[in-house]
Amino acid sequence: MHGGVVHIEIINTGSELLLGNVQNTHGAWLGRELFRLGLRVARQTTIPDGAIIEQTLAEAVRRSDVVLVTGGLGPTSDDVTREATAAVLGCELIEDEAAMRSLEEFFASRKKVMAPTNRKQAQCPVGADILPNGNGTAPGIYVPPRMNPVRPCAIFLLPGPPRELYPMFLAEVEPRLRSLAGVSALRGMVELKFTGVGESDFHQAIDDQLAQIEGLEYGYCARISEVDLRLIGEQSATAQGRAIALAAFGPQCISEGGDSLEFVVLEQLRRAGKTLATAESCTGGLVASRLTDVPGSSEVFVQGFVTYANRAKIAQLGVQVEDLEKCGAVSEEVARQMAEGALRAASVDVAVSITGIAGPGGGSPEKPVGTAWLALAQRGLPTIAEKVFHLRDRNGFKKAASQSALDLIRRHVAPQP
Amino acid sequence: MHGGVVHIEIINTGSELLLGNVQNTHGAWLGRELFRLGLRVARQTTIPDGAIIEQTLAEAVRRSDVVLVTGGLGPTSDDVTREATAAVLGCELIEDEAAMRSLEEFFASRKKVMAPTNRKQAQCPVGADILPNGNGTAPGIYVPPRMNPVRPCAIFLLPGPPRELYPMFLAEVEPRLRSLAGVSALRGMVELKFTGVGESDFHQAIDDQLAQIEGLEYGYCARISEVDLRLIGEQSATAQGRAIALAAFGPQCISEGGDSLEFVVLEQLRRAGKTLATAESCTGGLVASRLTDVPGSSEVFVQGFVTYANRAKIAQLGVQVEDLEKCGAVSEEVARQMAEGALRAASVDVAVSITGIAGPGGGSPEKPVGTAWLALAQRGLPTIAEKVFHLRDRNGFKKAASQSALDLIRRHVAPQP
Repeated sequence: MHGGVVHIEIINTGSELLLGNVQNTHGAWLGRELFRLGLRVARQTTIPDGAIIEQTLAEAVRRSDVVLVTGGLGPTSDDVTREATAAVLGCELIEDEAAMRSLEEFFASRKKVMAPTNRKQAQCPVGADILPNGNGTAPGIYVPPRMNPVRPCAIFLLPGPPRELYPMFLAEVEPRLRSLAGVSALRGMVELKFTGVGESDFHQAIDDQLAQIEGLEYGYCARISEVDLRLIGEQSATAQGRAIALAAFGPQCISEGGDSLEFVVLEQLRRAGKTLATAESCTGGLVASRLTDVPGSSEVFVQGFVTYANRAKIAQLGVQVEDLEKCGAVSEEVARQMAEGALRAASVDVAVSITGIAGPGGGSPEKPVGTAWLALAQRGLPTIAEKVFHLRDRNGFKKAASQSALDLIRRHVAPQP
Repeated sequence: MHGGVVHIEIINTGSELLLGNVQNTHGAWLGRELFRLGLRVARQTTIPDGAIIEQTLAEAVRRSDVVLVTGGLGPTSDDVTREATAAVLGCELIEDEAAMRSLEEFFASRKKVMAPTNRKQAQCPVGADILPNGNGTAPGIYVPPRMNPVRPCAIFLLPGPPRELYPMFLAEVEPRLRSLAGVSALRGMVELKFTGVGESDFHQAIDDQLAQIEGLEYGYCARISEVDLRLIGEQSATAQGRAIALAAFGPQCISEGGDSLEFVVLEQLRRAGKTLATAESCTGGLVASRLTDVPGSSEVFVQGFVTYANRAKIAQLGVQVEDLEKCGAVSEEVARQMAEGALRAASVDVAVSITGIAGPGGGSPEKPVGTAWLALAQRGLPTIAEKVFHLRDRNGFKKAASQSALDLIRRHVAPQP
């Protein structure tokens, strides 16, 4: 299958995925990882636990070069992915000695007794490879293309739980896929994260240039106030693409390699030896919550003020009653006083503030829903204020506004003291 | 197809769903809505935009009583769901007059000129019904079972964007499905949301009793620190199930009908005419952020203190330095002083506090990662403190701990003044 287009299908088994109890996140995760290798998913199918897997796998094998199956490797009677695969291949299942030892060690190390039903988890189609599972009892299975009677199609049987699936994909599946699909070891992905610029800006500004780079594949992933640009190819091609993207939108680039804006901001402050406080109204604590999602944030982040009511802005941050009355809570004056008040009250080096109208109520012709004022106060430097407008539903507004507040820090705090 | 098991398949079209750019949330949403009607999804397939839809639909129609297709109804050359359906049925597409008028009105009302390519969105297989779309340009299409040459299978073609899909499903698809599948109009779903109790507790305590109720289907949906119990059947059956669940776990029941814990807590406080402040350490603003996700929360929620550093706890909330040194930041004493300090500083009626160890660092043998102390201070009442333990990753801990804090309010604030 070298060189040409590789037909890959994913089959996710699990009744819970079809009842709306849980989101199927495997599809997107595997799609993203395959894209990183320059590979595409031709079809993804979700089916219940049980016998239907045999028919579904048989169909997929007839069309595909590679089939990835998740789930159905557990010890219960509903877990029949191993049996179905053996039936499709027309071969026997045998107990794999090494897999059996791993199972016994897994239980012994947890001081638990292995149930007899777990024994079937060590079974493997004759001639297939066991893929070790460091995070659970179900080993994976790799069926090489030559074992398929109908068409040279490789089959990977993988565990359902993400914390077992993801490491097994990276350690065991990716190297085999690279070799099967002829993906050069030099081929890789560069991922640049941007904020303050939309996907359409990229299309207009750089799509033509990117399209001319030989051997480069690229794609965008747009979320609220954030766009990832993924560049895939050999190093020389991705380097050219990276240079074009940064020449056009360098100041809006948050990170390379996937780091979040909150992580980048905390790192920047940590390196500068600076402490941070937040003063939030419309975002209601979301800026503080995003910052404290990052392990170790306590080194930098001292305190957040969620001054939702005007009286809290007055009492905690020293916002002037006259300005609240004259300019309103969503105004440059109030944003500046909130940031400067937080800087003083928390005794920190940097404070960011945000006050806006999340909606659905509270808008006016002069200040429609979606309007927000931000300010950044720094010890010994003049305070900066900015107005932004994010017309979205309430949660989308909170996300976008929190992004604006974090980005204000990123753009204006010098990384070195 | 009355009475028996109805075979339903979902086909989601959209290349972006297979690249890992976006999660496929349609599958779970439709699965949940069908479950509410007592129906199950037999298979869900995701395919790229383009010609592959014809083959996929033809396969699904041969196996199914109902096929729901999302996406591919737009105006571009990749949007070929209409054409593929006509090919599978062996019939012609004609321009529907009413659909054409709706399209013209859609553009006129937005003062936009309709592009010629949009015209194809008014096309419909001869004999099929147009399903009006109040939220976009793409009308849906309903193909009744009798139009299918192979097998009496109903086909629904639905738009991809959730804000078009969801209302169309509820208004146009659900009534037709009820009639096709013989789902009684009396049949409905009761949904009870619980916290502070796990799915296994339900299995042990009430599964046997629920299983004995004739005509009742039920299922659990477990998330972090929250379990939904869904009861489906005619009113007498769901009422029996509800009574059993509430007899066992009434005090842990947050809501009926899906209201979130933060919504319930704000309503309870609003009805009691009480105002609220939060004092958070380990949750880092998440409690405040969840509260302010609810529109109108400003009526109740006055202020949040995110006192991450000890010096912020001392300066803003009046926590005693001696107690911080003697008992540590994660202690009953500090939690009590944080809640009482927030009550005073924000001049509110109710204040909740939380201080804990989110991890991954910061644990000790006496206070391992996952430990948190909570307190609830109320004007004129003694302060209550509780210890909880949530052993999860950092984000899971924050979510579970914020749930404990909100639930402490729910359990102890009287709904009436």
